[in-house]
Amino acid sequence: MTSPSTANSERARLVHLAMATTARTGENTTRALLAKEARMPRARIDAIFPTDDDLFDAILERWYAPDIAIMEEVIESDLPIRRKFYEFFARRFRREKDRFREDPAAFAVYCEIGTDKFENVRGYIDLADHYLSELIAQAQEEGYFAGLGINRALSLINQMVVCYTLPQMLMILHEDRLEEGKLATIIDTLFDGLSGDARGAAPVAGLRIA
Amino acid sequence: MTSPSTANSERARLVHLAMATTARTGENTTRALLAKEARMPRARIDAIFPTDDDLFDAILERWYAPDIAIMEEVIESDLPIRRKFYEFFARRFRREKDRFREDPAAFAVYCEIGTDKFENVRGYIDLADHYLSELIAQAQEEGYFAGLGINRALSLINQMVVCYTLPQMLMILHEDRLEEGKLATIIDTLFDGLSGDARGAAPVAGLRIA
Repeated sequence: MTSPSTANSERARLVHLAMATTARTGENTTRALLAKEARMPRARIDAIFPTDDDLFDAILERWYAPDIAIMEEVIESDLPIRRKFYEFFARRFRREKDRFREDPAAFAVYCEIGTDKFENVRGYIDLADHYLSELIAQAQEEGYFAGLGINRALSLINQMVVCYTLPQMLMILHEDRLEEGKLATIIDTLFDGLSGDARGAAPVAGLRIA
Repeated sequence: MTSPSTANSERARLVHLAMATTARTGENTTRALLAKEARMPRARIDAIFPTDDDLFDAILERWYAPDIAIMEEVIESDLPIRRKFYEFFARRFRREKDRFREDPAAFAVYCEIGTDKFENVRGYIDLADHYLSELIAQAQEEGYFAGLGINRALSLINQMVVCYTLPQMLMILHEDRLEEGKLATIIDTLFDGLSGDARGAAPVAGLRIA
């Protein structure tokens, strides 16, 4: 019998191999290909990953584990709220940028697969939204983002920092345009400027110019 | 001999046909294919578009003409500065969204070609930056965006409104998350919150937490 720790390390090794294979082939790795790459019987692979989707979910779990650790660490820290917001985004951005720089081609492959399999990814995005909502609630207790429901504030903040959260941005924009110093200014801008009051940008109803 | 107005309308008709062909085939239309589609001698096409790149540039010119008209109209209007900023982005966003809804597949093709041929597109992006810089200078005369150089303000503003300017966003995000009401809140947030002062988001040098 395989001991639990041996089974775990075998699973981890296979996930690692599947990720390297995906990076090399440019396509999501199936159990059939993984069995071939690992030179293992297919039945052994299937015992660990009952479906191809289970294999993909295991890859996703590995991909997002550091992000979840970062978010939890920041939420639980005793930093002032503006600093929490900054670290919440900056640390994950830094990590994503490192991953992009390490292997831009593999990064592009993962972005594409993530788009194709958005239903699997959605849970991680929802989790990030959940943590950000906690931070927004803390900020609102201190008087920031007045007059906005949490979901509205969440959507607006997500839109204003999207350059630092959406992995594709590292490929679409020139990477050197994305700087942590700019992210800090954006966070300060949010804290001093974001509220539910209409302050003159929107057209006045009935007076929309032609 | 062909009169100038007939030549212009023939050119316009060919650009229109090339765009329809690109939308259908999913690939940038060459002069060879255009000649076939138009059932015209290749020499006639070549007289109008000396290179394939000239044909592509003519397509780009048609694609961006309404954006340029919008930007010029807004710049020259006597709207208050916040309203100018809003209209500068909202009108182009509305137009892009209409184009996306009309034919999402063709829209995706144009986004992809635009990415591949970024050198041709760059001039239009630079022009939009030029107009936005004019608006930023106007805003700074009124005391907004204090302590920021124009290029820094330009980059920060472009990043914070990127959901409403980058065509890909209509495909990456759920389109119904992008709302003109949110754009107005983002513009008000910029006017009330964006400055060059560090106000607590960034880590204090030497005290960066582990």
